[in-house]
Amino acid sequence: MSEKTSPGNFFEDFAIGQRLPHSPPRTVTAGDVALYTALFGSRFAISSSEPFARTLGLPTAPLDSMLVFHMIFGRTVADVSRNAIANLGYAGVRFGVPVYPGDTLEADSVVIGLKQNTDGKTGVVYVHSTGVNQRGEIVLDFRRWVMVNKRDLARPAPATLIPELPKRVAAADFHVPIALPREAYDVTRTGSAFLWDDYAVGERIDHVDGMTIEEAEHMLATKLYQNTAKVHFNQHVEREGRFGKRIVYGGHVISLARSLSFSGLANALMVAAIHGGKHTAPTFAGDTIYAWSEVLECETLPGRDDIGALRLRTIAAKDRACGDFPGHAGNTPLDPAVVLDLDWSVLVPRRVPVSAIGRGQASDQMPRRS
Amino acid sequence: MSEKTSPGNFFEDFAIGQRLPHSPPRTVTAGDVALYTALFGSRFAISSSEPFARTLGLPTAPLDSMLVFHMIFGRTVADVSRNAIANLGYAGVRFGVPVYPGDTLEADSVVIGLKQNTDGKTGVVYVHSTGVNQRGEIVLDFRRWVMVNKRDLARPAPATLIPELPKRVAAADFHVPIALPREAYDVTRTGSAFLWDDYAVGERIDHVDGMTIEEAEHMLATKLYQNTAKVHFNQHVEREGRFGKRIVYGGHVISLARSLSFSGLANALMVAAIHGGKHTAPTFAGDTIYAWSEVLECETLPGRDDIGALRLRTIAAKDRACGDFPGHAGNTPLDPAVVLDLDWSVLVPRRVPVSAIGRGQASDQMPRRS
Amino acid sequence: MSEKTSPGNFFEDFAIGQRLPHSPPRTVTAGDVALYTALFGSRFAISSSEPFARTLGLPTAPLDSMLVFHMIFGRTVADVSRNAIANLGYAGVRFGVPVYPGDTLEADSVVIGLKQNTDGKTGVVYVHSTGVNQRGEIVLDFRRWVMVNKRDLARPAPATLIPELPKRVAAADFHVPIALPREAYDVTRTGSAFLWDDYAVGERIDHVDGMTIEEAEHMLATKLYQNTAKVHFNQHVEREGRFGKRIVYGGHVISLARSLSFSGLANALMVAAIHGGKHTAPTFAGDTIYAWSEVLECETLPGRDDIGALRLRTIAAKDRACGDFPGHAGNTPLDPAVVLDLDWSVLVPRRVPVSAIGRGQASDQMPRRS
Repeated sequence: MSEKTSPGNFFEDFAIGQRLPHSPPRTVTAGDVALYTALFGSRFAISSSEPFARTLGLPTAPLDSMLVFHMIFGRTVADVSRNAIANLGYAGVRFGVPVYPGDTLEADSVVIGLKQNTDGKTGVVYVHSTGVNQRGEIVLDFRRWVMVNKRDLARPAPATLIPELPKRVAAADFHVPIALPREAYDVTRTGSAFLWDDYAVGERIDHVDGMTIEEAEHMLATKLYQNTAKVHFNQHVEREGRFGKRIVYGGHVISLARSLSFSGLANALMVAAIHGGKHTAPTFAGDTIYAWSEVLECETLPGRDDIGALRLRTIAAKDRACGDFPGHAGNTPLDPAVVLDLDWSVLVPRRVPVSAIGRGQASDQMPRRS
Repeated sequence: MSEKTSPGNFFEDFAIGQRLPHSPPRTVTAGDVALYTALFGSRFAISSSEPFARTLGLPTAPLDSMLVFHMIFGRTVADVSRNAIANLGYAGVRFGVPVYPGDTLEADSVVIGLKQNTDGKTGVVYVHSTGVNQRGEIVLDFRRWVMVNKRDLARPAPATLIPELPKRVAAADFHVPIALPREAYDVTRTGSAFLWDDYAVGERIDHVDGMTIEEAEHMLATKLYQNTAKVHFNQHVEREGRFGKRIVYGGHVISLARSLSFSGLANALMVAAIHGGKHTAPTFAGDTIYAWSEVLECETLPGRDDIGALRLRTIAAKDRACGDFPGHAGNTPLDPAVVLDLDWSVLVPRRVPVSAIGRGQASDQMPRRS
Repeated sequence: MSEKTSPGNFFEDFAIGQRLPHSPPRTVTAGDVALYTALFGSRFAISSSEPFARTLGLPTAPLDSMLVFHMIFGRTVADVSRNAIANLGYAGVRFGVPVYPGDTLEADSVVIGLKQNTDGKTGVVYVHSTGVNQRGEIVLDFRRWVMVNKRDLARPAPATLIPELPKRVAAADFHVPIALPREAYDVTRTGSAFLWDDYAVGERIDHVDGMTIEEAEHMLATKLYQNTAKVHFNQHVEREGRFGKRIVYGGHVISLARSLSFSGLANALMVAAIHGGKHTAPTFAGDTIYAWSEVLECETLPGRDDIGALRLRTIAAKDRACGDFPGHAGNTPLDPAVVLDLDWSVLVPRRVPVSAIGRGQASDQMPRRS
């Protein structure tokens, strides 16, 4: 192999405090948004309609939160997880300023923890990754940890530092870039009259529909994000691998769950945070993904009477409808059909003023036909 | 199932005169256009080239007529046909003002007919659906009727009202948003010198090429339109269904036929109306679609000597070339390879002034290389 | 078949000096760019980031060179190679002014050579094809030659004219639209610190990764370019053909090789020329493409100390990693896994001023997080 080809970082290449600037920058466009819609069938009004987004005080329709996540995460792969043998987890994923078509995203990661495994062949690397737009405003930051191979087994182990990882992002730290229109939030446009006030802790919501994944779809998605993790793209290698086939990027399943959650959570306009998540089993092309959610918390937000947060546990399962809420009794033993167990918070409009909102009540702004 | 998840409307949920506002609004973009081109390989100059579209008096290149159809139709599915067991037909599909990237489309449907079936378990719902842009201008309207399940079989049947459905859209009602350039319509750019004047009633045109459909393709298309009909996306359910596989959205076949029709109808710049159509057999991934057309009428348009209309019967067939015009002898018995039998009208430039138009005669506007 | 359907040109339809204007014009957009990224996972900073492109003196991010190639090549197919039985070669492919979203591309071809084969049934047609933007500026020109069927075997052979074909595009003729920023070229953004100065003649670079092609992917790509060559799209016909399946457009493999070459050639910002190339074996869906390159020449460019050219031989192989450089010992016998043997030149920044450039050295322009 020529020295010109970067082999990626191995465990001994990481050092506490090291900053990894990721490349290349990525200008996101209406083309990316269209592809995301085509891949996941996403229907949240805020990202589907520019005029609707403007009624919430935004300059135009922002990218779906999860598309932002994938664009930033994708940037980190070549430097952080190219030689990863396992993506062990992520925590404290906080969404920042909205991202709009035309914005240019960049990311870097700082190494915040290291622990060589007792086998001496691998180690765990913890990084804090941050994505910014062209004005340097943070659009996303998160911690994740991966298990990485050592290249040179003779190299001594670094001092172990296991960072403190946030158990959750506090609601007070949520970035809330939207504001409810005074004249009422138009539920005829969002697809559901259920607002923050209508959800209760412990409530379970079956998202009903299932969506089958094709090889071309998950590869198009993952290449769109410029995520270079080999296991998603190379059938010639994966044929001989543990599963005999390409593995779907875990984020693809999160986006499917987010899109399916429209049925039951149509007013969950944005994701505020992902507190943690487990990809409990691999997903492959041909699998049909279903999802359901449990409301863990209904949180008010400091100084805001127009927007609240719902903390959700969302479970995705493959080739299995979720009307009986698989996995709800806890994780022991986990239903083998479950592929994703996500702990996250979404932003949902509150019912103020109550009188102005209601199913079937059209807003004055509804374009009239001539 | 949580009350939060909309089960969609069942037969008894519809009432004559009821208005169903559809959600979400959809801002269409250059990204949607690129995906449409990638899916169907469409080559009509008006939607392929902004400068060419401007020579016809338009501000920029409009979306292909059928992309507009799918975007509006897709909006209606969740409210009208989520529980449909059959899409029985559509009529009076009239295309309105052109749609451009950046426009935001909305749709609603009004219930115009109801008829409970004698089995007491299902009924037919007739709706008039209308799509508008952000200025409230109509971009498309149409009638369609679907067979829908009852949820509560004990509910009494509503009064039967079968609406009068237009047998066809009259040429006088066509919206004709384009005007031929005075200095001549540039056929070197459209791919064919055959104009309205060159077609004759009874003429049959084999569109020659065939295009194979992949699962990823029809699902990407249908999700792009935010069409939520389950049969297209869920292999886990369809595996146990009547066909054992996902069914391709009928509109996908229309778009394939429209795209294939470029060979023989390159100057059919826009669709004016779809008078009616039958999806005579289901289409599946792996099928190769061919098409042919018969000219039913060559119509002049009131007050216009620059544009005429061709009324066409276009037949699409699967896994069968159409050089011998399958289905032309009438529908009894229909060739089993036929999947689409469409009655529609397209707008085609007329040859005026004759002297200024001709194959190989370059327009003055042709960009010259430096 | 109706006279309305163009059967394309047969050998006897071509005449020396004949100009074939191609249709339709094509306005390229951010949607096309997003699809190209999704198809090939391309990461070259110049096309990924608008701000980065502006540091090189461009108004915004240009389309990847190969996307321009496909758009122009695609335009020529209907008139030049619809009845081709073999694409025999191309030469003197020179990239011109960069293409940006919003540009409209047109192309024409001039017949520069004819030679009927001794079998009397086929002949070779040589054309010089040129692509221009809406200002008439050349974005690409190239020669190619194809073997075409005769329709009427009785027609006498034309006089044989075999044109002189450029063995290569001279470096002095390269169009170099980028200029290095005075304040330094920012290698933290491009993904590699290796510049023109770091490459040596004879150096071999394994591009390491492999990418598997799906049917949906190569068809979406080829339809995006409005390339109408039937062998890529019609499984119903190809099932009975020589290979029993659809053949992947050769240009798809070039784009895969270009994208894979990012590993080792991240600073190869643009393609200047393709001197020649052979598609040595057909590629099919399911194949996994790998690539490697050998540096043939390191050329300075007249009057430029900021940009140099690397002439590369790039070999792509299917279902075979390229760490041992298959095909490097010459073409006799060629490794049967090799599918592409490309001779091309790319533009790469030079190290001036040396002091301002270096791995990990951030530019002042790096957006800072707030």
